[in-house]
Amino acid sequence: MTAPLRLGLAGLGTVGIGVVKIVQRHAGLITARTGRPVTITAVSARDRTKNRDADLSAYAWEDDPVALARRDDVDVLIEVMGGHDGPARAATEAAIAAGKDVVTANKALLAHHGQELAEAAEAAGAVIRFEAAVAGGIPVIKALTEGLAGNEIRRVMGVMNGTCNYILTRMQAAGLPYATVFEEARQLGYLEADPNLDVGGIDAGHKLSLLAAIAFGTRVSFDKVELEGIGNVSIEDINLADEMGYHIKLLGVAQMSGRGLEQRMTPCLVPAESPLGQLQGGTNMVVLEGDSVGQIVLRGPGAGEGPTASAVMADVIDLARGLRISTFGQPAATLAQPVAARSATPAPYYIRATLLDKPGALAKIATCLGEAGISIDQMRQLNKPGEKDDLAVVLIVTHKAAPADIAHALDQFGATGVMLGAPVAIRIEAV
Amino acid sequence: MTAPLRLGLAGLGTVGIGVVKIVQRHAGLITARTGRPVTITAVSARDRTKNRDADLSAYAWEDDPVALARRDDVDVLIEVMGGHDGPARAATEAAIAAGKDVVTANKALLAHHGQELAEAAEAAGAVIRFEAAVAGGIPVIKALTEGLAGNEIRRVMGVMNGTCNYILTRMQAAGLPYATVFEEARQLGYLEADPNLDVGGIDAGHKLSLLAAIAFGTRVSFDKVELEGIGNVSIEDINLADEMGYHIKLLGVAQMSGRGLEQRMTPCLVPAESPLGQLQGGTNMVVLEGDSVGQIVLRGPGAGEGPTASAVMADVIDLARGLRISTFGQPAATLAQPVAARSATPAPYYIRATLLDKPGALAKIATCLGEAGISIDQMRQLNKPGEKDDLAVVLIVTHKAAPADIAHALDQFGATGVMLGAPVAIRIEAV
Repeated sequence: MTAPLRLGLAGLGTVGIGVVKIVQRHAGLITARTGRPVTITAVSARDRTKNRDADLSAYAWEDDPVALARRDDVDVLIEVMGGHDGPARAATEAAIAAGKDVVTANKALLAHHGQELAEAAEAAGAVIRFEAAVAGGIPVIKALTEGLAGNEIRRVMGVMNGTCNYILTRMQAAGLPYATVFEEARQLGYLEADPNLDVGGIDAGHKLSLLAAIAFGTRVSFDKVELEGIGNVSIEDINLADEMGYHIKLLGVAQMSGRGLEQRMTPCLVPAESPLGQLQGGTNMVVLEGDSVGQIVLRGPGAGEGPTASAVMADVIDLARGLRISTFGQPAATLAQPVAARSATPAPYYIRATLLDKPGALAKIATCLGEAGISIDQMRQLNKPGEKDDLAVVLIVTHKAAPADIAHALDQFGATGVMLGAPVAIRIEAV
Repeated sequence: MTAPLRLGLAGLGTVGIGVVKIVQRHAGLITARTGRPVTITAVSARDRTKNRDADLSAYAWEDDPVALARRDDVDVLIEVMGGHDGPARAATEAAIAAGKDVVTANKALLAHHGQELAEAAEAAGAVIRFEAAVAGGIPVIKALTEGLAGNEIRRVMGVMNGTCNYILTRMQAAGLPYATVFEEARQLGYLEADPNLDVGGIDAGHKLSLLAAIAFGTRVSFDKVELEGIGNVSIEDINLADEMGYHIKLLGVAQMSGRGLEQRMTPCLVPAESPLGQLQGGTNMVVLEGDSVGQIVLRGPGAGEGPTASAVMADVIDLARGLRISTFGQPAATLAQPVAARSATPAPYYIRATLLDKPGALAKIATCLGEAGISIDQMRQLNKPGEKDDLAVVLIVTHKAAPADIAHALDQFGATGVMLGAPVAIRIEAV
């Protein structure tokens, strides 16, 4: 039996308390699996007096997480405070500077400072692990970094924000508009204090940028993720997509094209019958595609005390077993500078446009598409006779087209003089 | 840069050649990810002269895989020959005796000899890895052993024989009987030389026994798996199940009940809308349930050159990175002797019985169920008027019942004198 692995736990919110519970409940199981005891020696949080759902009396208390990280009786810092700067960053840097390993659930911290933290960790002989930062309880970092390590990764996709998927599937199931379901989600406590982290796609974008770094051996580049939230997804488009056999998801896609790394976190149409299309409510799903393995789909809870703590403990147990891998799967210095490509990979697009119902209006729109080199797969006018007869809603599905060509055509729509409001265009991702 | 990791490859069939291709194609990628070169130094197969789809000229040749395993320039034996005794076992034992690590795709070998091989490996300071042995390209051994290591596992389920799932989904899609689709599968080359390994559930049972050992910390006990193949699944039952919203799958289930470890590999009804129910064709799926994480679903290709070689290489890369874990996730000596429980966990059952159409026949069957303590959820007679009016086909769905009670009731059916042939009973698994 080797010496215990001693944890310092910074953050006693939902995830932190979940970690305490597993360490306490499964001490025997964990020792059997790792060959050594795993113990918590000290904890830190903002408010010592808060009533928490766990017995913390055996642990030393530190008001300052940086002091926690530096304690001699802490081998590993568990950082579950959150926030991409401030105490989370300071404590992580302090732990690394002291040569200690860090397990973190903090996607924002790594999305913003992953490269410098990885370099610092490697220089100090420390390891950073972050299974809990992406897709909650799904062991996707491990699947990608280790399980598919013999593959050149072709594409990574995922629905990685449960709140957005809840909102979109609830809109569809209940036929309710975005604003109503957003308000429901807020009242249910599903939204972050800054809801834009969820519905603006930022949280999911953080996660995608971490997966992309591992998948393609590139530096984390969250600032290069094309971000579009779900605030403009209308119930009308959800219903029209459904009629055609598609569901709308906030889908992250990372892939290497001839022009470099593409990272998108945007609403997409996916086939209703695909695993991604069938995903309901707050569940997460990640799809990994490798040159040898083909397609692997991972599905599970993306948040919550138990699932997130399970992921934190997987990292802790890896460290207790002696597994030491570079943060993003290869030495930080060898990660390539990603080419800042906007997406160039062609795809079919769903386009909905409201036109003044004048003779030739449809032809003008079709001409814009044709002149941009885009061919039309389906085109139909949605109004039933007698209904809103001063305007025509037109639904178009294109054949595969480059995103830039789509953007150009939509620009040209405006110059036709027949548009009523802005057109909607949503990518149809082949999954 | 540390020294190369030198592989000895025993077996040059589909999987072996797949490994050669990855090692050759991704030498740079693998070195970047592991910090050291991974090379093949020697290979072995039955027939040296056979034309193979890879350039093997740089590798030493051994006719005898045992000699390969003992070579001084081999650090790791890759055993992809198959067979639970004979050369595969001899080579594996020779490698372990020489203190060398083994990566194997051989589920039969480990299902039969896993405990003794694990003990020998640990005594010799060697490691056995077998990601490729279960569910092909899906990194499920890693997900269970490492990714969910902080959980007490509640249940493991899986569709892990692609040929069986192909046959069952093809029967349903085409409305064809088992014998016809079995013959199709044989002609397509989907079946093992001994088809009973596939359709008898043996191959899938091997896999289940390995997952169960890891999940529950028990010795591999393939001989305790309740095995029932798909040979008796009729198109009639597939169609009737479908009408009720279920699909029939050859489903493996391992769970710990009050009476010990239960392992079943049997046809089951699962909800058509569940991830398992939706699984089509040769794809595999494994469902892992842990006390903290909840339910994780993994889906991917269960066989084939690329996927299986991907899994072999994941193990090789783990070894190159220095990961060393006990074969079944904890020291072999600490694995418990599993209680040889036949399944006792209650479930609803689907029962189809053909009765002589006499007054009181239905009541007699219902009485048998009632006397066994089984209550009926649905019961209906299937014959349409005028059709086969000398007999009545009765479909029953029970409430949750213990398997032993179901078996007892079916026994009693025979004594009623109203049965025409044997009844069919299929477990409905809650997934």
